[in-house]
Amino acid sequence: MTSLAKTDRPDPDTANLSPSVAARHACRAGMATTTAGVANGFVQGNLVILPEKLAAAFHRFCQLNPKPCPIIGMSDVGDFRIPSLGLDLDIRTDLPRYRVWRDGEVVEEPTDIMARWRDDLVAFVIGCSYSFEEALLADGLPIRHIERKLRVPMYRTNIACGAAGPFAGPMVVSMRPFKPADAIRAVQITSRFPSVHGAPVHLGHPHAIGIADIDKPDYGDAVPVGDDEIPVFWACGVTPQSVIAAAKLPFAITHAPGLMLVTDLQNKSLAVL
Amino acid sequence: MTSLAKTDRPDPDTANLSPSVAARHACRAGMATTTAGVANGFVQGNLVILPEKLAAAFHRFCQLNPKPCPIIGMSDVGDFRIPSLGLDLDIRTDLPRYRVWRDGEVVEEPTDIMARWRDDLVAFVIGCSYSFEEALLADGLPIRHIERKLRVPMYRTNIACGAAGPFAGPMVVSMRPFKPADAIRAVQITSRFPSVHGAPVHLGHPHAIGIADIDKPDYGDAVPVGDDEIPVFWACGVTPQSVIAAAKLPFAITHAPGLMLVTDLQNKSLAVL
Repeated sequence: MTSLAKTDRPDPDTANLSPSVAARHACRAGMATTTAGVANGFVQGNLVILPEKLAAAFHRFCQLNPKPCPIIGMSDVGDFRIPSLGLDLDIRTDLPRYRVWRDGEVVEEPTDIMARWRDDLVAFVIGCSYSFEEALLADGLPIRHIERKLRVPMYRTNIACGAAGPFAGPMVVSMRPFKPADAIRAVQITSRFPSVHGAPVHLGHPHAIGIADIDKPDYGDAVPVGDDEIPVFWACGVTPQSVIAAAKLPFAITHAPGLMLVTDLQNKSLAVL
Repeated sequence: MTSLAKTDRPDPDTANLSPSVAARHACRAGMATTTAGVANGFVQGNLVILPEKLAAAFHRFCQLNPKPCPIIGMSDVGDFRIPSLGLDLDIRTDLPRYRVWRDGEVVEEPTDIMARWRDDLVAFVIGCSYSFEEALLADGLPIRHIERKLRVPMYRTNIACGAAGPFAGPMVVSMRPFKPADAIRAVQITSRFPSVHGAPVHLGHPHAIGIADIDKPDYGDAVPVGDDEIPVFWACGVTPQSVIAAAKLPFAITHAPGLMLVTDLQNKSLAVL
């Protein structure tokens, strides 16, 4: 009778979970696929984990570069919890897939980091464009890479980030093409969300920010830009990974691109106006 | 002694006038030059005066087209005062120069319209880009035509205004070139000022809005657009004059372009955020 009852209806312990908590529990249970479209309405974040001796410099780097690196949550030293982003959140297990970096190279892409966790590690969670994309879609703006089920195209630019300790290098940007009137609306909408990259950093002239070929992104997938469209560029949370690689940092852990931390914050709560 | 005293110091009746009231008094006394740079900080307006039988349709036209035609003040029928814009304002005398239109043609450009005023006329005052230009300059953005002491370039577009009665036709836009990051900032700043045209209506692709040659504006002066710049287009208060001409209206009075009504409103009071 007990086992029949369990199959007849969902376990009451999980049935009433918020979609964001359910997403993290799914990751703990082994989900290792993209979080795009998961727990719609909830804020997702980029992850950077560093040893304490590098964390202060990285924190200054984020302070200097709030557009690519807006911090939405941060752990205490050695603490794998970030209660402000989710009471039960465990940063060691709650992302689908991680990247372990040594000397600036990805050496491993595990689905949890239980075996890599250390008492000196600090976790930073950085805002992600999924949040402002929700606001753009809600306003009726078409987003090319979502329509085509591709990853957003991302580019290393010639825009230098402010440097802090070993953290230095070019800003990475994501690109979305829009008709001109929609580009103007996109500036307005994303200006309301400074904690998830905010307003664009550039539009219209890819060469001016060091992008030689718009059809060859450094990360993600290429999308076409129409003759009557404007490529619009936002600062991107992949910037820290580019910087970790350039600085050849001895040790770091990040999320795998597109496989983010799902938090209990709501996207709409991030709007400043 | 009395006359000596008068030359020694300004007339106390005018010395303490607000710059905006002083500007209107100067117009009454014969000033017939541009109001660009006059009474900085105070809102200037485009003027449209129509017979009552056309005024209701024009009012609907403005309602339908708030970006080119944001109404900031309006008179009662036959009343030459608009106290909300200035307690002593007399719309018949307080602009530097007027245009009298008959059958869609300018037939006269007098410095006052005392002889043309009628008991059936209604005056509309429409927001002007001088207000948002002040906010752009205050933020440190360079404005090309101001730097070069030229009039802003304006273009008839293929963007159709919403039609109301005889009022119909294409939107007129003004253009200011900016570096891309400044263009983004300009969208943010002007979005705060919906009553003076608000955010741009277009950027980047002049041909897409029917502008064949950016170097040949339909009104004002051409300004150069650099290869690393984006032309940014705002709806323009000259639109009603274009529409009056196209509709061949039997009678209308407007301001002469660039020679505006100076009001007692302050530009900063127009910011919605």
